[in-house]
Amino acid sequence: MTSPRQTPPAFTPLVDSLPATVPFVGPETQERARGRPFAARLGANESLFGPSPKAIAAMAAAAAEAWMYGDPENHDLKAALAAHHGIAPENIVVGEGIDGLLGYLVRLFIGAGDPVVTSAGAYPTFNFHVAGFGGALHTVPYRSDHEDPEALLAKARETGAKLLYLANPDNPMGTWHPAETIRAMIETLPDGCLLVLDEAYVEFAPEGTAPPLAPEDPRVIRMRTFSKAYGMAGARVGYAICAPELAGAFNKIRNHFGVNRIAQAGALAALADQRHLQEVVSEVEAARSEIGRIAADNGLTALPSATNFVTVDCGKDGDYARRVLAELIARDIFVRMPFVAPQDRCIRISAGRRQDLAKVAEALPQALKAAEA
Amino acid sequence: MTSPRQTPPAFTPLVDSLPATVPFVGPETQERARGRPFAARLGANESLFGPSPKAIAAMAAAAAEAWMYGDPENHDLKAALAAHHGIAPENIVVGEGIDGLLGYLVRLFIGAGDPVVTSAGAYPTFNFHVAGFGGALHTVPYRSDHEDPEALLAKARETGAKLLYLANPDNPMGTWHPAETIRAMIETLPDGCLLVLDEAYVEFAPEGTAPPLAPEDPRVIRMRTFSKAYGMAGARVGYAICAPELAGAFNKIRNHFGVNRIAQAGALAALADQRHLQEVVSEVEAARSEIGRIAADNGLTALPSATNFVTVDCGKDGDYARRVLAELIARDIFVRMPFVAPQDRCIRISAGRRQDLAKVAEALPQALKAAEA
Repeated sequence: MTSPRQTPPAFTPLVDSLPATVPFVGPETQERARGRPFAARLGANESLFGPSPKAIAAMAAAAAEAWMYGDPENHDLKAALAAHHGIAPENIVVGEGIDGLLGYLVRLFIGAGDPVVTSAGAYPTFNFHVAGFGGALHTVPYRSDHEDPEALLAKARETGAKLLYLANPDNPMGTWHPAETIRAMIETLPDGCLLVLDEAYVEFAPEGTAPPLAPEDPRVIRMRTFSKAYGMAGARVGYAICAPELAGAFNKIRNHFGVNRIAQAGALAALADQRHLQEVVSEVEAARSEIGRIAADNGLTALPSATNFVTVDCGKDGDYARRVLAELIARDIFVRMPFVAPQDRCIRISAGRRQDLAKVAEALPQALKAAEA
Repeated sequence: MTSPRQTPPAFTPLVDSLPATVPFVGPETQERARGRPFAARLGANESLFGPSPKAIAAMAAAAAEAWMYGDPENHDLKAALAAHHGIAPENIVVGEGIDGLLGYLVRLFIGAGDPVVTSAGAYPTFNFHVAGFGGALHTVPYRSDHEDPEALLAKARETGAKLLYLANPDNPMGTWHPAETIRAMIETLPDGCLLVLDEAYVEFAPEGTAPPLAPEDPRVIRMRTFSKAYGMAGARVGYAICAPELAGAFNKIRNHFGVNRIAQAGALAALADQRHLQEVVSEVEAARSEIGRIAADNGLTALPSATNFVTVDCGKDGDYARRVLAELIARDIFVRMPFVAPQDRCIRISAGRRQDLAKVAEALPQALKAAEA
């Protein structure tokens, strides 16, 4: 053992000021704490219908090539995405999931005290990044369980926000706005404000939810992912669609070799299998109906959803919903809930397979009874 | 098309000041520019001996589980690494390769103008991160093709450096210092300076190169990787060994779900197959000898190496070595060179398989002749 005489350097003042809390506790962490596995994994909006078999095969084949770094330009995936969307590769940034891309995006724009606007209770990992770069986060409440475009815009105007975050469809509520509302938002953004339009769940949404891509528009960046409908959450591949000047700026700071080579191969194969994607979307629609039926059978209300999860109103306050959540977890059902009142009266259930939802149907009445006791 | 009236937000002043250059141009980018593939991929110090077959099998099996996010705590891998090294999991940070970990580390400590010391011509991705967080990089020259501990320490004292970067063994030169030298460095670090000891290549180094782990010592953080000897560069798994307080601080800023699930499974299997690792180390030793023989056959001098590459002195100036490099690339041999004079009189050749080095043996005499013409 050495006996250190010298002191290590000080963290930056910003790092010193950050809390040790993390955005999400993983299900594996909960399983280790509980001492037993979950029977149904329905809390992280992963796709229980899995990746395309072609993507699985591509990843399995690429495993033997893992000795090579991935292409730092993500060229082939960008080219395929460009063709898929009818845009140019210069309008695309591929990164380590939307989480990674949001971190880079915040770093590009936000320094100490720079204002950012989001909804109270919206995606916490975005907030984690804003805090992590010293930004000042301003929030507005949801309105009727929807994000509130008018209030978000007003807050952005009031604070001089550089970034305005909106998820459409929204997580954790599952609700959505039509494309026309989003277009109107873009047209009335205050000067010097970028709309961060998180479309992680857009493949599940009805036609007319996503505005047409206008990739040269410098006022908006759109976040997409292979984690949800493409069923590859563990692979960490997301992409952003934006104006070329903004896309290019990511190169100044991103981890160039950061996207796993196996994941690049998998995403390319997944994108090519649009039939699988459509099957997943159909399965998810059926699962949403089934969750609605289970909720109704138990006297609860399922919110309309354009995502791969359904947010279920437990009909009382947050404490009650937290008891329901705890009782479901005690019955080996991994689910989560919205973090902020009054949305915390709800629990959020991912669209599982028949066998997963059968377990929910079995556990929910018991959980409700226990929560009321 | 929308017709934007508003302007987007300004990048931070720091981002505005950053150059658009990237640390490394990938071989795929070069292949696309050349219009044909390389015949031997010997420029990025990847392991041509591949990952353990058990790691390949584990990754192939995990591909079907890619619908699940990876464990954000990397619990199982950390536990296995702790057991392997005889340290506690609290001393380990798992991240998206050493590149990702270096980025987090710099972010923890370095703000505008904070001094950092490294060697001129050492790992450029570290410098990329220092610049990316506004640090002031101070360099000292190599001494006899080795990093110069005395000069690094003197520069750290002179500048009040918060971080001092040293790779042992070194990339791009392949040279190394004995453990005693590193221990003496740690003992004489100036107050408030952390030694960033990059040991990416340490598995290839002779006994007595790495000082014993002293994971409670707050003055040093050691970087290790599955990219080199474990043959998993494309998987993006690295780890740091450091004092628990520092390890915990990464949680304030890291991308918690950033490590690919397939990669976690692969790293776990790779770590368990130490026999494969030893075979790779033996193959690399043989390849280093073979590169030395090829160099000598052509009148060139191979530097001693404790890594999976050999740096070959072309015997003239940087312009000549760059011509040799270009002529090798023109003959479909992907190699690289040290960036900074006088080390740029050398080219760097990764330890390849027999068939790879046979191509080097064939191409090198022609490349030298062409470079002299």
